[in-house]
Amino acid sequence: MGCIQSFRQLCDYPKNTNVHISFPAVCFVWQTAMIILFGIFIRYNEESDPHWVEHKKANNLSDLDNDFYFRYPSFQDVHVMIFIGFGFLMTFLKRYSFGAVGFNFLIAAFGIQWALLMQGWFHSLDAEGKIRIGVENLINADFCVASCLIAYGAVLGKVSNVQLLVLTLFGVTLFAVDEYIIVSVIHARDAGGSMSIHTFGAYYGLCISWMLYRPNLNQSSRLQGSVYHSDVFAMIGTLFLWMFWPSFNSAISDHGDGQHRAVINTYLALASTVLTCMAISSLFNKHGKLDMVHIQNSTLAGGVAVGTAAEFMLMPYGALIVGFCCGIISTLGYIYLTLRFLRLIGGIVGAITAASASKSVYGEEGLINTFDFEGKFKDVVPTQQGGYQAAGLCVALCFGVGGGILVGCILRLPIWGDPADDNCFNDEAYWELPEDEEAASPVLHYNNHMQNKDVAESHFTMEQT
Amino acid sequence: MGCIQSFRQLCDYPKNTNVHISFPAVCFVWQTAMIILFGIFIRYNEESDPHWVEHKKANNLSDLDNDFYFRYPSFQDVHVMIFIGFGFLMTFLKRYSFGAVGFNFLIAAFGIQWALLMQGWFHSLDAEGKIRIGVENLINADFCVASCLIAYGAVLGKVSNVQLLVLTLFGVTLFAVDEYIIVSVIHARDAGGSMSIHTFGAYYGLCISWMLYRPNLNQSSRLQGSVYHSDVFAMIGTLFLWMFWPSFNSAISDHGDGQHRAVINTYLALASTVLTCMAISSLFNKHGKLDMVHIQNSTLAGGVAVGTAAEFMLMPYGALIVGFCCGIISTLGYIYLTLRFLRLIGGIVGAITAASASKSVYGEEGLINTFDFEGKFKDVVPTQQGGYQAAGLCVALCFGVGGGILVGCILRLPIWGDPADDNCFNDEAYWELPEDEEAASPVLHYNNHMQNKDVAESHFTMEQT
Amino acid sequence: MGCIQSFRQLCDYPKNTNVHISFPAVCFVWQTAMIILFGIFIRYNEESDPHWVEHKKANNLSDLDNDFYFRYPSFQDVHVMIFIGFGFLMTFLKRYSFGAVGFNFLIAAFGIQWALLMQGWFHSLDAEGKIRIGVENLINADFCVASCLIAYGAVLGKVSNVQLLVLTLFGVTLFAVDEYIIVSVIHARDAGGSMSIHTFGAYYGLCISWMLYRPNLNQSSRLQGSVYHSDVFAMIGTLFLWMFWPSFNSAISDHGDGQHRAVINTYLALASTVLTCMAISSLFNKHGKLDMVHIQNSTLAGGVAVGTAAEFMLMPYGALIVGFCCGIISTLGYIYLTLRFLRLIGGIVGAITAASASKSVYGEEGLINTFDFEGKFKDVVPTQQGGYQAAGLCVALCFGVGGGILVGCILRLPIWGDPADDNCFNDEAYWELPEDEEAASPVLHYNNHMQNKDVAESHFTMEQT
Repeated sequence: MGCIQSFRQLCDYPKNTNVHISFPAVCFVWQTAMIILFGIFIRYNEESDPHWVEHKKANNLSDLDNDFYFRYPSFQDVHVMIFIGFGFLMTFLKRYSFGAVGFNFLIAAFGIQWALLMQGWFHSLDAEGKIRIGVENLINADFCVASCLIAYGAVLGKVSNVQLLVLTLFGVTLFAVDEYIIVSVIHARDAGGSMSIHTFGAYYGLCISWMLYRPNLNQSSRLQGSVYHSDVFAMIGTLFLWMFWPSFNSAISDHGDGQHRAVINTYLALASTVLTCMAISSLFNKHGKLDMVHIQNSTLAGGVAVGTAAEFMLMPYGALIVGFCCGIISTLGYIYLTLRFLRLIGGIVGAITAASASKSVYGEEGLINTFDFEGKFKDVVPTQQGGYQAAGLCVALCFGVGGGILVGCILRLPIWGDPADDNCFNDEAYWELPEDEEAASPVLHYNNHMQNKDVAESHFTMEQT
Repeated sequence: MGCIQSFRQLCDYPKNTNVHISFPAVCFVWQTAMIILFGIFIRYNEESDPHWVEHKKANNLSDLDNDFYFRYPSFQDVHVMIFIGFGFLMTFLKRYSFGAVGFNFLIAAFGIQWALLMQGWFHSLDAEGKIRIGVENLINADFCVASCLIAYGAVLGKVSNVQLLVLTLFGVTLFAVDEYIIVSVIHARDAGGSMSIHTFGAYYGLCISWMLYRPNLNQSSRLQGSVYHSDVFAMIGTLFLWMFWPSFNSAISDHGDGQHRAVINTYLALASTVLTCMAISSLFNKHGKLDMVHIQNSTLAGGVAVGTAAEFMLMPYGALIVGFCCGIISTLGYIYLTLRFLRLIGGIVGAITAASASKSVYGEEGLINTFDFEGKFKDVVPTQQGGYQAAGLCVALCFGVGGGILVGCILRLPIWGDPADDNCFNDEAYWELPEDEEAASPVLHYNNHMQNKDVAESHFTMEQT
Repeated sequence: MGCIQSFRQLCDYPKNTNVHISFPAVCFVWQTAMIILFGIFIRYNEESDPHWVEHKKANNLSDLDNDFYFRYPSFQDVHVMIFIGFGFLMTFLKRYSFGAVGFNFLIAAFGIQWALLMQGWFHSLDAEGKIRIGVENLINADFCVASCLIAYGAVLGKVSNVQLLVLTLFGVTLFAVDEYIIVSVIHARDAGGSMSIHTFGAYYGLCISWMLYRPNLNQSSRLQGSVYHSDVFAMIGTLFLWMFWPSFNSAISDHGDGQHRAVINTYLALASTVLTCMAISSLFNKHGKLDMVHIQNSTLAGGVAVGTAAEFMLMPYGALIVGFCCGIISTLGYIYLTLRFLRLIGGIVGAITAASASKSVYGEEGLINTFDFEGKFKDVVPTQQGGYQAAGLCVALCFGVGGGILVGCILRLPIWGDPADDNCFNDEAYWELPEDEEAASPVLHYNNHMQNKDVAESHFTMEQT
């Protein structure tokens, strides 16, 4: 710990937010690298290739059997969550809406490309060394980016756009390895990504935030709050995340009953969370008033927590119970703790539900189908699966913490153009702002007038004397 | 009438908006009740249960035959209408955006749970006494909640969050009974819910609002209007409602041509409404200017009115005519009347279209298919069906008015923490508000400065004397 | 040129924004005309007619074979782009948000009706002289309207609502002819409509804007900019356009691999555009800051440019390259040019990709399938197709420029109620505005107070003397 402390001090240096050269350079070089790597590795898969016509005839399929029609509506919902949901959720700060929406856009646009490559190398490299992509890969790329956007939330307003691109590059890389270990090596099921996406993303962000700790930040505290309409903008993000979370948790579930059940479970868990979140928010306010901050953050807890287990036989009342607990814990966490350990619940629910699976509940084929007990895993029993789920959770935790500390160290290097303390939470550092007639200037006008008046009055006074 | 008047006076008491105990208590108790009832009654249906794999094989089905793939995109559209559409439609008030979006969220989250139970008990209790839910139940629950949100619109800004939960509890209960009578007993068709949802909801809300009448409300009238950007926020709600109304009217229509036709009819009726709504808005303004209030409310009239008949052979030009008339009537209604009797049109259109159905238009099988002329209704002829539709409309009306008066009485009891007259339309009563630097404070700053100046000047004056 | 100049002068006249009679009159007459024409021409098609039940049985189909299930999710995405996307994209001006969202709504609602007729007459008139509509027609109507909304963007804030209706009437008419020539006569493929929609729309709008040139417009320049939160509203539009562009480009592609591939190509081109757009925006700003104007406009360029070729075998890296270039060119175009020639790229990419198509890439059947090399076109070879694509591009260009000049002339007639120069970009001309307490009035209050104070002070002074 001492060494981290001294490393932190070592990197304290006068800040320079000029990213005039570094930002365009990074964008161009990385985007060019993407083009080259896509040229070498990425091709259409069987279902998005014109040879589908022949494949279809050979296998006596209809166009509807193309995975596109199973997944596309869910994909678009997830896409909205990534770009509108996360983007607007972070607009709550009074002067950081451009950064919230704009940098979210930047991170996600770069991240999905890099994720297609990273996830492709780990999961779907074929015999010819090509990655064959279809709509499921696009969904997975969006998922992967979600973990980086969660991490962005933890450092919101305190980093430069170049730092965010670095955070994304490493985040996606770590996520892909993490996910590979959890899903392919450990064989844990993680449909809604409670473990790989949320646990990893949250701890990755927290550790980076901790490494970038700014002891004198209260200097810019006047910008740390929200204003009335920025909270309304943030509700757009919150609601799109909340409404489409069932799509998030079901987008890559098994066709048929798997997707269907994941939607029902998530829908119920989310509904239940809203009530307990608001109850706690009111209970812990001295006048019984509700707080928008809690609603913006904690109403989503149920969806996160039910993620891993969304496809399992959680039962409708089970989903309500998960949501009930998460609404309480998440809101209390906001009130009493900075550290949010909530994501862990998702993994734990998954482990318990998997361990208690039985043939009587799922039916023999349903059990095999839901947990993929096939191939080398055909002798796995549900209690073992529970263990796998727990192991997966640990891996996600380790990757988040370890990766966060590593990337945090890199981001403290004095080359990334991060803002000075008194420039945090302020769009002015990285955005060309419109002159803001309606909001800021009345005060300005007033002050100007006052100064003129003071001058006039002092004249007047002088003349009198 | 006299007795209602004196009952009203009886309940006038000093207001106390403190819901510190009552609100959390209601949330916790009701959510716990939901968990218990779900535990007893609610299970997955055949298509969301892992045994689907076996069912599928036994019946030689494909995964695509799972109702999930027919309904899920429509479900998500309806979900957006409920949470974003209704929520943001009500943000038009200058200082009630938190209440609009936030309480809408609360009502809907509780309402969908209670609706799953109520509708389940009436419509889909199986031999074992269980309610088997799938995506169609989720859509129906969202529909049911819509009627309560319409009622919320009628009392916006004048009730507490506890009162809204009570309104929702009774609203959903009454709706489920109402719907059961209309659809199952009377055998009226009501795909887009013009009758059960809109007629019931509107009259339910109006009667509650009438029971809660506040004679001295002009005290807080300065907050009753909109401001420029609150109207823009409200347009987000308006447009999402408008755009997704075709999904609303088709979400539970028959597979195949039924859903297809419902979408076309709704799309056309809505388009036509926009033109006549704007025309009337301009015509009745003394400078020919358009009024946002009309657009926010009356452009949706066509979708509501075409609801019941959406699936019928209304013909494309018929849909345009319905929209044409509704745009005019609804906008005039806004200008001249407080009471909006518009919803009735929906039911009337349905009755006429049903009565004039014929084999030559629908084809024999099409007729049976569209109107469910099967089982005990297999001898029904279209003119009879027209009568059923009219009867359904009356039932919806009675439930709305009766239920509204009843619930209005309950809500006048002095225990619900409703706001005093001068606190209406004000988020401050129930929300922890951010200090609002940009908007409110310039005036504040100014006043503070003025006071300081006055003090300074009086000093100056005193010194002079 | 000289004659155009003198025609312009001829039409200069004192402005009168009163549309009290003309606007309602146009709305009512045109909407009535729509009803009559729909009555004569428009009917349900086979898949939205109740006889579908019989058709289904006769052809041994399932309900899922109804085109509705292939197209409806894409349709709803396109619908959101038209009404929310284009509407909110234009809210960036500080005092023109009502006009942006409201007139966009008006244009689109009228345009889709007229487009159903115009496109129907050209493309799907059957033997009985009827136009049979289904979900694909609705999508095409939305597409058609998009070209008029792009044109609206070019004259934003400078025209009346009546002028916009005229612009739409002619725009849709010209578009339908244009599209008929491109697709049916020349046999060019244009799935995402880069040519017919974007090229036509952009040049149509530019030429109208040029015809309506106002030399003294700087009078109202104080309203030409954005304010902080109007830029955030505009980002809602930008992001919904960006997110749903894959649906736009794939909505009417061939079932199966065609739709699948169009989505992948568009998704990748858009992602790549974001990075180069932001890079150029930062590079050409003197402090390296990003500019919201570039992001609102140029991040969409990749989707436009990939439009025509979206379904072709562009390859994933090809899509990235298109996006890479478009991000650069489009942003530079914004910085250095008023005229945006970008749309042309879409057509050019299409021509090159089509010309270089080969059996080895597409497979024999895939080639026939993708390019519709059937019937009288069965001997077409890909290089010929490349020529067709180029010819299509020229046609779109000619229609845009010619139509724009023609309609521009018509719109200069002194009967349309367009705003005076000092009333441009101001909602006040056509909208009943709420008194805007939060924003404008602090200054006002201040001035009033000041005046009172001045009076008081002059009293004081007088008394002293």
